[in-house]
Amino acid sequence: MTMEFTAGRGGGRLPGGPKPYFLSDGEGEKAIVIDSLFTVLLSADETDGQFGVFTMDGPKGDAIPPHSHGTHHEIFYVVRGVTVFLDDEDGKRQVRELGPGDFGYVPAGIVHAYRVEEDHTRVLGVSTGGFERFFQTLGEPTDATTYPATPLGLPGRERFVEAGRRFDTTFLRPSARLDV
Amino acid sequence: MTMEFTAGRGGGRLPGGPKPYFLSDGEGEKAIVIDSLFTVLLSADETDGQFGVFTMDGPKGDAIPPHSHGTHHEIFYVVRGVTVFLDDEDGKRQVRELGPGDFGYVPAGIVHAYRVEEDHTRVLGVSTGGFERFFQTLGEPTDATTYPATPLGLPGRERFVEAGRRFDTTFLRPSARLDV
Repeated sequence: MTMEFTAGRGGGRLPGGPKPYFLSDGEGEKAIVIDSLFTVLLSADETDGQFGVFTMDGPKGDAIPPHSHGTHHEIFYVVRGVTVFLDDEDGKRQVRELGPGDFGYVPAGIVHAYRVEEDHTRVLGVSTGGFERFFQTLGEPTDATTYPATPLGLPGRERFVEAGRRFDTTFLRPSARLDV
Repeated sequence: MTMEFTAGRGGGRLPGGPKPYFLSDGEGEKAIVIDSLFTVLLSADETDGQFGVFTMDGPKGDAIPPHSHGTHHEIFYVVRGVTVFLDDEDGKRQVRELGPGDFGYVPAGIVHAYRVEEDHTRVLGVSTGGFERFFQTLGEPTDATTYPATPLGLPGRERFVEAGRRFDTTFLRPSARLDV
């Protein structure tokens, strides 16, 4: 990839417009969020705002807190397992362990959380364009190609507030909704 | 998955609206195109028209003919190799062999083609919402979970014309543009 474009915090690795390009495994705009590596492969800048694509590489770990996105739809495609928790549109709890090739869809407004069940898990995510850079705002930009051997600390409250505001995402206390 | 919804030829396996759901590996709306299995995991019906997600499982084989989509952006995320050919926005030929975890982006209007390099290749694709059902129109709907042992014949000319018209896709003769 050329590096001549810029896209904010930890950005500048993607073309910034609708041009064709390739990335090798490990390339993209990367950020560590606590114990996981998030890599943005495509952003709203390249798709006329339509969709974004990212991967999450994580060790076995604690659940990500329950949250919902006001405007962004999101998918999970599991490359290597993860358990997804959600409250469906009738308020019914769903818990599903996903293995390689399995798929989950979480439309906007649905409270959800997930937990990585094995080290070296990889999940590919696709979202409504724009949400893909949530992780660079919440976490720490990096050039690493895998997740850290030692987890970073939890982002500060102000970082959660900023990421939530910018990306229309509401975090709930785990005890509040999903028992994960 | 429930089967209570319908979505045209080979459809009816997806919710048809913005509801959360899960699919196990091998589930979805499926069609065989010649020698490859295409599985739609998510359609424009579930994402307010924003994006669609599908997989291609293929044997080592001939190149897919060069084509371009008038309005649909498309990505390739390689799960298990494929070679992508394209003419970039400056008319320069790019040929790239992609392995597991590698990524390619082809915006609307860019002529491209690909060739599967190994049996049991899997590529996950994401496109502007709507294009994901192209394969059900061009190929043959199926309940199979892998590609056929014996390739189907080439779809008839009228099928290419219909799929091209409905999904705003232009096919070129291989000799015309990309030497694959």
